[in-house]
Amino acid sequence: MKTKQHRTEGSRYYPKRYDFDPATRDAILDEGLLCHVGFQREGQPIVIPTGYCRVDNTLYLHGSVGSHFFMEMAKGRPVCISVTLLDGLVLARSVFNHSMNYRSVVAFGETRLVESEEERWMAAERFTEHVIPGRWADARKPSASDMKKTMFIAVDIQDASVKLRAHCVADDPEDMQLEVWAGVLPLSLKAQTPETDESGITGIPVPDYLTDYQR
Amino acid sequence: MKTKQHRTEGSRYYPKRYDFDPATRDAILDEGLLCHVGFQREGQPIVIPTGYCRVDNTLYLHGSVGSHFFMEMAKGRPVCISVTLLDGLVLARSVFNHSMNYRSVVAFGETRLVESEEERWMAAERFTEHVIPGRWADARKPSASDMKKTMFIAVDIQDASVKLRAHCVADDPEDMQLEVWAGVLPLSLKAQTPETDESGITGIPVPDYLTDYQR
Repeated sequence: MKTKQHRTEGSRYYPKRYDFDPATRDAILDEGLLCHVGFQREGQPIVIPTGYCRVDNTLYLHGSVGSHFFMEMAKGRPVCISVTLLDGLVLARSVFNHSMNYRSVVAFGETRLVESEEERWMAAERFTEHVIPGRWADARKPSASDMKKTMFIAVDIQDASVKLRAHCVADDPEDMQLEVWAGVLPLSLKAQTPETDESGITGIPVPDYLTDYQR
Repeated sequence: MKTKQHRTEGSRYYPKRYDFDPATRDAILDEGLLCHVGFQREGQPIVIPTGYCRVDNTLYLHGSVGSHFFMEMAKGRPVCISVTLLDGLVLARSVFNHSMNYRSVVAFGETRLVESEEERWMAAERFTEHVIPGRWADARKPSASDMKKTMFIAVDIQDASVKLRAHCVADDPEDMQLEVWAGVLPLSLKAQTPETDESGITGIPVPDYLTDYQR
């Protein structure tokens, strides 16, 4: 297994942080909006943030055909794609036991340029629906010219490591009587009020899929 | 410049997305809580999420001396460290012009094991204060034994690319009269109500630095 080198400690009080249930992996990948794609170029590791979507065991990326990053991806490169969701700050009584609650997937595979028109259209729709469910039916669909300018990259996941921490404070027993506030500060990505672009037709109501938006 | 290979398009309507002001770079690094560290191991790119802090031109990571990831970092490896802040979803009238507002730093350097006790203590304090300003003075400071179990890694930034998108919708002129809602859905990482750990001394009030917490 290629993923073992970043195995780390379990907690003293809780089970190890790895989760081998494929449903956990998929739930994390489906909640995230951004991934970080790592690859090597001329001996230099490079990590690029970009959007993605998951379809079964495959991650799709897309971008401009003129982008150097996507031109590199089109060549078929070994990559590592990480998706991390930050759920909270864990404040122990001692600095040493501070931690974060998070869920992460570190996925390995090789990039593949998507060439079939059918798979490209499927990826375009799934990508849009991954980010904003309901949007595909609402917005103008890509034209042939839009699609020509867009490159789709697929990464079939060969191996993935799913790691999470989702529990409360774990202090040393001798610290339990310290007069220090301890607990968890939950964090989450929240949508604010939608900001309407007034430069076109006005009076179009904000769609329900935005007013209710949450990951 | 090593960073040029991931240069991408500017918008048709707005300037290119690169920002060369060092203050912008530092503001992004100081706001982020997680970074993604990319390195190569036996031909395999690996991207690991972890906490960090910035001190001048240096990024610090820390972790358990028993962690395989940190043992690898201690060897002095070329790395790419990316920090990405997601600020919003940009909903154009056409699917093709959808985008995200974000701010990102892609930094390059080599890892260095921090050996001096002075630098290790400085990094421990700055790390804590980066995540939760005010916490260092409040929690139990690391003991000699805590410090022995902790490895600090420094990466002096040799080169960095700062990229952002922070503007409204940019539709094709011929789409402006479509009856499709367009605009920006702002997103931000929000703190929820702190969850007190009741297993030690009770009645300790939630500290001000948590009730007012924001990035």
